[in-house]
Amino acid sequence: MDATYGALCKHGYAELTMQDIAEESSKSKGTLHYHFEGKQDLLESFLAFLLNRFEERTRTIPGETPTERLHEFLDELLTPTDEESAEEFRTAILEIKAQSPYNEAYREQLAEFDRALHERLASLVADGLEAGEFRADVDPDETADFLVTVSNGSETRAAAVDRSPERTKRHVHQYIDEYLLADDTDTTVDDEMEAAE
Amino acid sequence: MDATYGALCKHGYAELTMQDIAEESSKSKGTLHYHFEGKQDLLESFLAFLLNRFEERTRTIPGETPTERLHEFLDELLTPTDEESAEEFRTAILEIKAQSPYNEAYREQLAEFDRALHERLASLVADGLEAGEFRADVDPDETADFLVTVSNGSETRAAAVDRSPERTKRHVHQYIDEYLLADDTDTTVDDEMEAAE
Repeated sequence: MDATYGALCKHGYAELTMQDIAEESSKSKGTLHYHFEGKQDLLESFLAFLLNRFEERTRTIPGETPTERLHEFLDELLTPTDEESAEEFRTAILEIKAQSPYNEAYREQLAEFDRALHERLASLVADGLEAGEFRADVDPDETADFLVTVSNGSETRAAAVDRSPERTKRHVHQYIDEYLLADDTDTTVDDEMEAAE
Repeated sequence: MDATYGALCKHGYAELTMQDIAEESSKSKGTLHYHFEGKQDLLESFLAFLLNRFEERTRTIPGETPTERLHEFLDELLTPTDEESAEEFRTAILEIKAQSPYNEAYREQLAEFDRALHERLASLVADGLEAGEFRADVDPDETADFLVTVSNGSETRAAAVDRSPERTKRHVHQYIDEYLLADDTDTTVDDEMEAAE
């Protein structure tokens, strides 16, 4: 899976060959072919691996309150990793998304990921509602769906027109504080910063 | 340009050839090659054509108030056209976005489109502010940037995981009414519908 990551970053999706992946690993091309039918089969496993890692990493989210955890989760989601290859990887994932309508296995894996992200977000929003932190008319499902869309848009624009996700991230934090939070909630970080100015 | 649209919908981007485009038009492949160096050159012109059409179509937006015009504009933007080929076309555009990091001409055209969409949205939000319809602390530029991201996410999810943009559209209408509108603004359509229930 590390070799697949490396090869995707180096070659992109369209040009990627099993040979490229073998060259990033200690395995021979023959060994790869023993385990995987071909590039598409291997990439399907790679997408399943990414989903698994996402679920493990997001099992516990730091933060003392549901609102803090939602901020933290979205901050993580919308921050590109520091790795130099992050940009290349984002491009490769966008290529795979664009292949999805032609490839049922990719489509299923991507849909699983979409659902997992949606569920995580919906449960964080539901926690905030239960704790009385969010407006009573906030719908966890609607809100989660919207935030999954925002995350997809952020990734697409970063890859296609080189727009940093930083700006989207700032607006999403604001969206939580000004749109989701119940009016009687304590002042937010933003309010405090504004008050200090 | 019509032939390019037709051929993109039929064959997708990756497999598209000049021959495919010629077959959709009354021109021969030779004539196409006389005007365009190749597929990438032709598609660059096609992206410029789409931008042009977008700018013409959105020069005037129906609606009596800035808020109504913003609703109308986003409704239009987030509604897939009725054409049967809309889904295929969306996929082709996502393929071109995924090619953008490898192709400077595409990247420039897509960036122009991103900017044009941003400008249109920012000016609609600025109009709403000037008319006193939106909260005084709404930032037209930030808001426009966020909405461009939402639109990209809606397109990406529709193509990659078959999520209809309808849900995003509903949430965006809510976002305008509950997040952008100043508190003392008259009741919104949603409020009226809720009151009638």
